[in-house]
This record gives sequence, C-alpha cells and structure tokens, in this order.
Amino acid sequence: MKDDDALRTELRALVGADGVLTEGADTAPFLVDERRLYRGRALAVALPRTVEQVARVVGWCNEHRLGLVPQGGNTGYCGGATPDESGRQLLLSLRRLNRIRAIDADNFSITAEAGCVLASVQQAADALERFFPLSLGSEGSCQIGGNLATNAGGLNVVRYGMARDLLLGIEAVLPDGQVFDGLKSLRKDNTGYDLKSLLVGSEGTLGVITAATLKLWPKMRSSATAFVALATPENAVKLLGVLRAQAGERLSSFELLPRIAIELTTRYISGVTDPLTTAYPWYILCELSSAADEPLSELLQQTLADAAERSLLLDAALATSERVRAAFWRLRETVPEAQRLAGSSLKHDISVPVASLPAFISEASLWVQAHVRDGVLVCYGHAGDGNLHFNISGIDRARSETFLAQEPQIRRAIHDLVAKFAGSISAEHGIGRLKREELRRYASPVALGAMRAIKQALDPNGIMNPGKLL
Amino acid sequence: MKDDDALRTELRALVGADGVLTEGADTAPFLVDERRLYRGRALAVALPRTVEQVARVVGWCNEHRLGLVPQGGNTGYCGGATPDESGRQLLLSLRRLNRIRAIDADNFSITAEAGCVLASVQQAADALERFFPLSLGSEGSCQIGGNLATNAGGLNVVRYGMARDLLLGIEAVLPDGQVFDGLKSLRKDNTGYDLKSLLVGSEGTLGVITAATLKLWPKMRSSATAFVALATPENAVKLLGVLRAQAGERLSSFELLPRIAIELTTRYISGVTDPLTTAYPWYILCELSSAADEPLSELLQQTLADAAERSLLLDAALATSERVRAAFWRLRETVPEAQRLAGSSLKHDISVPVASLPAFISEASLWVQAHVRDGVLVCYGHAGDGNLHFNISGIDRARSETFLAQEPQIRRAIHDLVAKFAGSISAEHGIGRLKREELRRYASPVALGAMRAIKQALDPNGIMNPGKLL
Repeated sequence: MKDDDALRTELRALVGADGVLTEGADTAPFLVDERRLYRGRALAVALPRTVEQVARVVGWCNEHRLGLVPQGGNTGYCGGATPDESGRQLLLSLRRLNRIRAIDADNFSITAEAGCVLASVQQAADALERFFPLSLGSEGSCQIGGNLATNAGGLNVVRYGMARDLLLGIEAVLPDGQVFDGLKSLRKDNTGYDLKSLLVGSEGTLGVITAATLKLWPKMRSSATAFVALATPENAVKLLGVLRAQAGERLSSFELLPRIAIELTTRYISGVTDPLTTAYPWYILCELSSAADEPLSELLQQTLADAAERSLLLDAALATSERVRAAFWRLRETVPEAQRLAGSSLKHDISVPVASLPAFISEASLWVQAHVRDGVLVCYGHAGDGNLHFNISGIDRARSETFLAQEPQIRRAIHDLVAKFAGSISAEHGIGRLKREELRRYASPVALGAMRAIKQALDPNGIMNPGKLL
Repeated sequence: MKDDDALRTELRALVGADGVLTEGADTAPFLVDERRLYRGRALAVALPRTVEQVARVVGWCNEHRLGLVPQGGNTGYCGGATPDESGRQLLLSLRRLNRIRAIDADNFSITAEAGCVLASVQQAADALERFFPLSLGSEGSCQIGGNLATNAGGLNVVRYGMARDLLLGIEAVLPDGQVFDGLKSLRKDNTGYDLKSLLVGSEGTLGVITAATLKLWPKMRSSATAFVALATPENAVKLLGVLRAQAGERLSSFELLPRIAIELTTRYISGVTDPLTTAYPWYILCELSSAADEPLSELLQQTLADAAERSLLLDAALATSERVRAAFWRLRETVPEAQRLAGSSLKHDISVPVASLPAFISEASLWVQAHVRDGVLVCYGHAGDGNLHFNISGIDRARSETFLAQEPQIRRAIHDLVAKFAGSISAEHGIGRLKREELRRYASPVALGAMRAIKQALDPNGIMNPGKLL
C-alpha cells in the first residue's frame, strides 16, 4: 500500500495542486458534520472543477481501493458526508463544480452542476419567470447534488414531491470511474431501468452525482397563507382533505405545530409573536400559491369558513401582508433553533400514512408522558406528507445528561411505534451513519438483500461512501 | 432436464389443477401480443390466485432454470409479455390476482393487486370521491401490474406524471421467489435505495409485481375542454406555457393533432366531425380540471383569448356540453383506429424535450417527405410531455408491401433524429422484444452496463422475462 504522501502527490496530478487540501486548518470544516455528531479524518480533501476530474478521482480511488466520501454543502443531519476516523478515506467536495449549465424556460427545465447552492438554482429559475420548488431551511448553503443524493424533502413536498420527483435527468460518475451521462430533459422516457431514481437517495454509495436536469414550474404570482388553530390532529387530517378538494394542487404547504412550538419560539426567538390571541392545542400553517393572478386569499378564507362550519377549526389568522406571511413562516422555521436554545433535544424524523397521524401522535404522546423523565414533546412538521419531527426537548438544563441518557430507549420505543404504524424511521433526512443500525433493524431482510446485491454489483470494491446507509 | 409433463404436474401441485392451462385452445390468447407481432409457445399458462402461489411458481422456475414471462392484460405494444417460440418458458398470468386490498380516502391511497383492470381501480377510487389519474386507451382491459411493469403514460401525464409517479408502495416477488413487501403508503420515506422505482418500468425482468399502493386525488368536479387550431407546433409550445402560467396544475391534458388526423378520423370513424368549420394545419386538444367547483370554462376562454391576442392560435371551439367534450376526445382517441382502417402504418413512440418539439417535427417531416414513398406522416400525441406518436401511414393499399419494406430505413432515420435531439426511442410503450436492438444501439454503454449489472445481481439465473428489454 502506498503511503499517504505518495497518494496525495498522485491526487494533485489528477486535480491540480490547488484542488487538494491536506492541512488541518483547511480540511477541518469538511471533516465535521452539521450536528457535530461525527468528526472524521481524511487522506485529503479533493475539490475537482470538472466532471472529468471527478471521474479521474473516482477511478483512481477504485484502483487503490480507497474509500471516497462525496460532500455537498455539508448540511446533512445523519453524518452521511463525514469520513470515518481512519484517515485513509478521501473527501470529495463538489463545491467547485457549481455552474448552471443550461436553463430553458420553454422546456421548464434547468441543468445545474452538483455544487450549485440550492438558493442559486431557485434564483436562476426566478430570473426567467420560472419556479424551482425545492425549499428547506438550509437552502442558502446546501447544494443540489447533496439534495439529490439524500432525496431532500422540505416545505413544498405536499404539492411537488421530494427531490427525486423534481428530477428529469442526471449525470453521475459510477464507482468504476465511468461517467453516466443521463442528462435528459424528457418528461417521458421508457428505455430501461430507472437508474436516476436509484442514484437519488443512495447517499453517495452508488456513485457521485455531478449534475442534474431539474423540472421547473411557472413563477408563482399569487399566494395566501393562514395560521389555523385546531383542537386535534384528527381535524388537521380532515382540514387537509377539505383544502385538497377546494384548492387542489394550489395547496403547497401544510405544516403542523403544537402549542409548545408557539411557547418556545415566542420565548426564545426575538420578534416572534403568537399569531392568535388565545392559546390553542394545535396549529396548521398552510399556504396556497398559483402562477396565475388569482384571488387566493378569498379562496382560502372561504375554504376555512367551510371547515369552521364543519367544526374542524377553532380560529384562524390570514396573512394580510407579506410581512405577516413572513412572520408566520419565521415562527415555523425557528422551531429547531428555539429547541436548541431551550436545551438539549432528541430528534426523530419519522413518517406514517397521513391518515394515521392522529393515532400515531396520540399513542406516541402517551408513551412519552409515561416514560420520559425531564422531557417534553415537541412534535411538529410536514403533516401534509405524514412527516413529523417527533422531537423531545429537555426541560431542565441541570439534568441534561440524565435526559439524554434515555436516548436509546426513547428511540427504540418511537421507532417501534413507527413500525407498528407502517411508517418510516427516516422520512426526509436519510440514513447516513446515524441510522445504519436502525435501518438494519427495521428494513425487511428482502429489501436489504436486494439493496446489498445492487451495491455489490455497481461498487464491487466498496469504495463509495463506505460505512454509510448499508 | 425434466420432461414437460413432469414439470406441468409439479406446477399443478403449486397452484392447483385449475390454475394451470396447457391445452392449445386455452393458452392461445396468452401467446400472441396485442399487435400480432409475436406468437410464442409456452410450457403452460399459470394463473395463481395469491401472492404465495406467485412466490412458489417463481421459486420453482428459478430452481428449474425455467424462463418466466409475466403477463397482465396483454395490451402492450412491444411484445414484452409474449413468450419465445421454444415452448420451454412459463407464462404467468396475474389476472386472478385482482382484489382491491384497501382504499383509504383520508390517506388518498388505494392498494390494488396486479391483476386489477385499470378501469376498476379508477372506479373504486371514484366510489369514495377520489380520483386515480392514470388513463389510457386500453384502460378497460389493461391491468395495473402491467401498467407499472411498463411505466405506462397516457392522457394525464402533463399533470400527474407516469405510472411510476403515482406509486407509493409495491409488493413484488423477486427472481429468487422471495416476496418484497414494500406496500407502504408513505409520502416520504428515505430509508435506502428506491427499489420500487427500479421495479417499475423493468418490464418483468427483475421480478413480478403482485400489488401496489397508489396515490389518489380528490374527485374532479369541474372541467373545461377546448379544441384549438394553430399555425405551427411552435405556437403549441408557447400555448402550453401560457396555459401552465394561467391555469397551473389544472391543465391535465395537452394533445397535438395534425390536420390529417381530422381527415382520417372524419373519413373512417362514423360520427366524428371536424370541431371547426375551416381547415387548419395543427390542433391542440386541451383540458383543465379541478376538484373544486370552479368556472374553468371562463378561465380557459380567457386564457385562449390572451393567447389569441399574442397570435398563438387561429381558432378554437370550447366544449359546451359533456357530449361535445366526448366528441373531441373521441376524435383524439380514434386516430390509431382510423390509421388502421386507412391501411398499413409504421409507428414510432418517441419523445424529445418539449421545447424541441417544433424543430424535431420540422426536420423529421422534411425527411419523410423527401425519402418515404407511398406514405404520409400522421404525427400526433402527448405534446405536453414532448411525446409524439410519429407514425407514417401507407396511402396506397396496393403498394402496402413496398411501403412496409421501407421500415428499417425509416426507423433508423427517425430514431437517429430522436437521438440528435436528445430524445427517447421509447417514450411510453417500453422496450419489450420489439425495441431491444434499438436500445442496444441508442442507450449509452455506461447505462447499459449498469442495467446489466443490476439484472445479473437480482436475477443471476436469468429466469425473469428472458429476451426482453436487455
């Protein structure tokens, strides 16, 4: 086996001296994950500028049997882009591969390289009167390649689907260093297996996504947003049905918040206020949007009035200005920050069938009340997709350690309940390193067997993101 | 190797005597494809009633290295469900596996077994005020398992996507006889590789789909339909942009027809009349629909008026009644029948990026005019998806043979042009047996290599639908 210095010299020959980082101060930001759960080491950090350079690096890793960890904006929640502690893996950052290669308004498509920051893709679309709907908290720093590798979700899934659903074509370097040029911008293409859907969500274990052709929509010109109070999650599911029937695909967000989310954000985040004058047990933040000039506020008001007549809601505030709308969204988006400021927390990114949300919340809440010490449930999220961030916050800083020590039992109980409801232990954050053991426990052996067979077939030397997902 | 009679006896033990057909008169309908391109032979036709029986049959075929050909409604256009001529393959019909297992209105989902006829899935949804959008000419006889195995498209793709996009969960028997139970009804699930998307469109070469959980929408309560005359395909693409901007996702169909489609259908199909009083070169049949009670006719009328102001259209007829709407659709849907009645034809199910439709049609039409003898172009289809049925009809019955003899050169020229426009040689019909050689010619070697590796990994004995797709 060659020594590290010899390998680094070869690597510099592949991507140029300025494309290889080896000094601790330079590499440090790449070697720790967003949540500071993992700190890895690396042979080097490679920063290729072209697909050809990526292909060369992957082929070289394959030849030397070196583990390769692709990384986008490094905003993942499951440690999927952090190398292990051996110091023998190569960190491949896509950040310099960041050109918008093409955008076609008539074709409603954009082709972006993996390292494009999500917000820059949104902006490029907007400049041509088009709309790219993927939207999430980290959109200012996450990269489209990472969004695809992890099949990112976010705030508009109820209308537009996950990252996989937004994809028309893909370019990727396969584990043997060959470039799969699947950058089609076709709406229909039935010529063989769906390799692009397989690469999306494979978390860098089957290849390196280098570019993607993505679907665009017409730019949105109208919107209406409401903050709705409800007695129960049952009523939230019914309200969702009413909104889908009366507003159709114009429903673009449907977020659930419990009372405690208001209490945490109004206490810890400066400027956040309760949109309603009375306290209620549950809230829905919903938004309609349309590319046409439509009276969506009236439609939303009428729909909520119909829902009120059916006793589905207790109160509601409509956003009367962009400022109010932004305030509603700020409340929703700062829940994680408020939780962080409030103390430690245990997080579970889970989903169940939308219709099962009420029963799941009821049963899981009872369990938390009965079994968790020094913790309080903060269960919120993308209810329109059945996706909850089923988090538990420590309520006593002094007892943070004993609170956190309950993690294994709490995780087991919640994930067991998710399984009972035929749900998912990772709705939108993926598996990475964090949930590997959980996947092994909860996935069907037949599914795991098929995944392992595919991994072995495409990456027989196991160089692609070793120790992640499978 | 066991003789045929011994194998048939074993098979009867697996699925019951009434589940195995061997007599020529009984098996004949299963052994010829819809277009009468292929006539195969089979060891037997197996008709299992349960997933367990399917698993037993697949495991048994794997053990005996017998080729297995799954078949749904047998309505495919590419010979993908017809066995070869050896008489040693087993035909597995899913038609008796035809229960609706569950339907959940609140969850907007339905779970149907593979043998359910598509129309019966639509009807089951409708009975609960829900809508299942997959719609195609053969919906009265095609089966949902076949729709998924071939990733069917149809008339509503512009709004709802292909069959793959309608899928939440899948149950399938893998080539080793194991049951993959992936019947989740989750909107979000990031736990590993997307096996369901891989099975969809794999045309029975990676396993047998036995059931699926599918997305439902609210039942549609309003619609508006127009038959629009245009000067050019360029204007059709621009009109599509205007409709998407002003009607948003309410646009559910956008079909292109050339003048000759009117001439053929009005001449050969009884009762079809030209919706407009003057002849025009091109037409769009478009439809808006909504789950709400909305004045869609007014919206469509206003949108078309705006388009007319921008000189995008020449004339338009709005459907003023369900009867008129049905007449518009009958014209569109009887184009293939009119072509058949007019004489022989050469068909190409292709797609290009939507924005490239005009340039493709222009260049391909010029080629046809210059090179095809005794034929006339009938180019129509799902323009909203960039999908054309680029067909050429023989115009002189007496010269049908010499017309058809041009098939190889015509196919080569059209598919070469499709490749030049970065299109697909099979937009919605799949590969089957018909287009295997074409796939080998036009697919990238890297993509083909990855597909073969996956096939080898999941079906090492090559029992699943041998000779199809790859």
